Amino acid sequence: MSHTGLTSGLPAWSTDPGELARVSVDRSGVAPDGLPDLVVFAQSVRDVRRTVSYAASRGVPVVPRGAGSGVAGGAVAGAGEIVLDLSGLDRIADLRPDDALAVVEPGVITADLDAAAHPHGLRYAPDPASAAFSTIGGNIATNAGGLRCVKYGVTRDAVLAVDAVLGDGSLVSTGRRTVKGVTGYDLTGLLVGSEGTLGVVVGATLRLSPLPTTTATAAAFFATADDAVAAVTSLQRRGLRPSTAELLDQATLRAIDDAQGTALHTRGEVFLLLQTDGYGAEAELAEAERLLRPSATHLETTTDPETAARLVAVRRAALPAVERYGRVLIEDIAVPRSRIAESITAVGDIARRTGVRIVVFAHAGDGNLHPIVVADSAPPERVDEAVAAIFEHALAVGGTLTGEHGVGTLKRPWLADELGEPVLDLHRRLKSVFDPAGILNPGKAIR
Amino acid sequence: MSHTGLTSGLPAWSTDPGELARVSVDRSGVAPDGLPDLVVFAQSVRDVRRTVSYAASRGVPVVPRGAGSGVAGGAVAGAGEIVLDLSGLDRIADLRPDDALAVVEPGVITADLDAAAHPHGLRYAPDPASAAFSTIGGNIATNAGGLRCVKYGVTRDAVLAVDAVLGDGSLVSTGRRTVKGVTGYDLTGLLVGSEGTLGVVVGATLRLSPLPTTTATAAAFFATADDAVAAVTSLQRRGLRPSTAELLDQATLRAIDDAQGTALHTRGEVFLLLQTDGYGAEAELAEAERLLRPSATHLETTTDPETAARLVAVRRAALPAVERYGRVLIEDIAVPRSRIAESITAVGDIARRTGVRIVVFAHAGDGNLHPIVVADSAPPERVDEAVAAIFEHALAVGGTLTGEHGVGTLKRPWLADELGEPVLDLHRRLKSVFDPAGILNPGKAIR
Repeated sequence: MSHTGLTSGLPAWSTDPGELARVSVDRSGVAPDGLPDLVVFAQSVRDVRRTVSYAASRGVPVVPRGAGSGVAGGAVAGAGEIVLDLSGLDRIADLRPDDALAVVEPGVITADLDAAAHPHGLRYAPDPASAAFSTIGGNIATNAGGLRCVKYGVTRDAVLAVDAVLGDGSLVSTGRRTVKGVTGYDLTGLLVGSEGTLGVVVGATLRLSPLPTTTATAAAFFATADDAVAAVTSLQRRGLRPSTAELLDQATLRAIDDAQGTALHTRGEVFLLLQTDGYGAEAELAEAERLLRPSATHLETTTDPETAARLVAVRRAALPAVERYGRVLIEDIAVPRSRIAESITAVGDIARRTGVRIVVFAHAGDGNLHPIVVADSAPPERVDEAVAAIFEHALAVGGTLTGEHGVGTLKRPWLADELGEPVLDLHRRLKSVFDPAGILNPGKAIR
Repeated sequence: MSHTGLTSGLPAWSTDPGELARVSVDRSGVAPDGLPDLVVFAQSVRDVRRTVSYAASRGVPVVPRGAGSGVAGGAVAGAGEIVLDLSGLDRIADLRPDDALAVVEPGVITADLDAAAHPHGLRYAPDPASAAFSTIGGNIATNAGGLRCVKYGVTRDAVLAVDAVLGDGSLVSTGRRTVKGVTGYDLTGLLVGSEGTLGVVVGATLRLSPLPTTTATAAAFFATADDAVAAVTSLQRRGLRPSTAELLDQATLRAIDDAQGTALHTRGEVFLLLQTDGYGAEAELAEAERLLRPSATHLETTTDPETAARLVAVRRAALPAVERYGRVLIEDIAVPRSRIAESITAVGDIARRTGVRIVVFAHAGDGNLHPIVVADSAPPERVDEAVAAIFEHALAVGGTLTGEHGVGTLKRPWLADELGEPVLDLHRRLKSVFDPAGILNPGKAIR
């Protein structure tokens, strides 16, 4: 379709097939159905409003896009759709140390905001693994988590207010600059995690938090997932509040060993990276050591930053190591805390049964598991079978399809199984209030 | 109106004028317009569904009610309305220490849940001042805060899932039993704080958190509000995370002195009660002492529970002491952290200008101020003028009408000033999705 009615006067847009191909995909591996019609590189809120108004009047779907770093297909765009690229809206408009908040545009890179806060003794707490290249807008769209959200909360907990362009092109401001507030419904929280289906976030007021004074780190290995999870549970029940509690299974350790020539997998079946921070960091770690020691097959603790960096590097090496096996699907189930060990075991069973190579990373403190499925390790129907089995397991133990990545396009088939039809229908009616023409990222997040 | 169509077969209801008068008011002092038609004492989810369905079919407003402890008029019911009393739904249905969660009915008293968690080393973190008599359902309706929410979050942060009866009598379940999850929109967060206007909460899954190992306490006095607030800010900027940071102004100290025969007001203009907890409690308090010492006119610190209880008692004595002056209106503005001192001063100025007796309590860590207005200390028009001036001040400094009590009926006149008409209209359209007949607590929270 020709979109001259929109593009005349727009400062930046493209119909170049190479550009369109680039902006039609994210990191999910989902293939779009043809190329989108057009990409608009928004330079202003006005550009966003104009694009959405145009799309609403013509019934053309708009797919908002930040860095394209999503892993669930939330930003995939195909034929007949307009991509609305927000990466050019990348200003930190205000940073107020005394109020511990920042006002940003959606295209700001997450790590850049964090870095901008550091000179003030502050940080932006949510730290998705993609922080170095994902945008705040994308983080808001998916309610991104990260390693330290077990202590400091997910993206929703950091978003105080948003400016959003609704599906009719109108601009609304929700929320406030105060930490607390209950005037009106929580529209801010509703927009967070809505994957661009309720509004296009064009600005956000974000909470910053103090940089911790001290960080202490432990690396432990255990003979079984049960032992490792029991250890984490025992810490939490003793009132410890780790800032990081990451598990890697033995298949992941083998991948890292293959990549690095190390022998981590000989130390145990499961690796636990634990960090504590703040004024109690060392006392907490000492208590953690006492609790982990009896069941750990190997245990190392440190407050030395260099040694800590070496231990943290094991966790960071995990995904690149697994990616050497081929293209990966990063799954993202979350389960009740008491079911974590059983879920790690279940994923291992699914891998064996289907012949698909799957490794597991887990944010153990909050029950969020990332089964990493190597897509080319088995025939496609086997991979589909494995992924379906993982979702079915999550729902069977009272868990959820996605802890922090979003539903996107990939998880829609299981949506009704988790939410139930009546609640899904409520979602649809809610969307129609925000987006009467149904043009905001249709077919994503809900169905 | 006769409601025999509803009451036939209902196990418990009343049209007794005494009962109706009792359930027609809350602690706001708002006088209802006549007596409600009927009160239904729900014994089951079925009773709730039946009452709401009946009301929807007849277009009769339903006012959900817990303990009636609200202070904004959210549970006030008048002629032509049905009161739906949920206090009989008071079971803790499940408490799972390994998952750190509890499943409760809405009528459970907040402090009872907290107490039930203690033997497991857990607690229910939100601690509104009303915890001893308010219900979880009421806490959810207003997104209640409390003293320790500066560190542990407000009610919304503790609610993982709810069961709610919508305005058509249908029952929906939102949320999940996992800490993290982004499947679908955050309907749970939307229902929290909606003051019974979107659905009647009939069940909730709540997050529990570990009881802190250690608590340390400081009581400090300062010559000015500026000094006190600057001290709190300096703590937060040093990365301290106090679990309590309560300010009382000198007018409050005088009220306490009058009631108790003490001489607290001679120690300074402003009192700060500070608590730290967890593994770093003592290290944090030592650092706090170092930071407070230069500007404090009086400073006392302790880790001894009995001494701490004596210091905490000062804060607890505040409201009863002020209530000796007469009936009070408990206001609840929140302002950006950097504007707290100025707001305390502004309230003092308003009191002097209008001749109304007003004292101030503040949750200083999160900028939530409670100006306590003594209703009978001046002519009604003066009191109205003072209250209006407080709200206008809050909005002028980028704050909000209500930090944790809700809008109820009392704050509706200022609602559009804070939210703006377009956002308020969005609220109305959103409500119509959940409550097409407009019968759920109409005229409250939004307008």
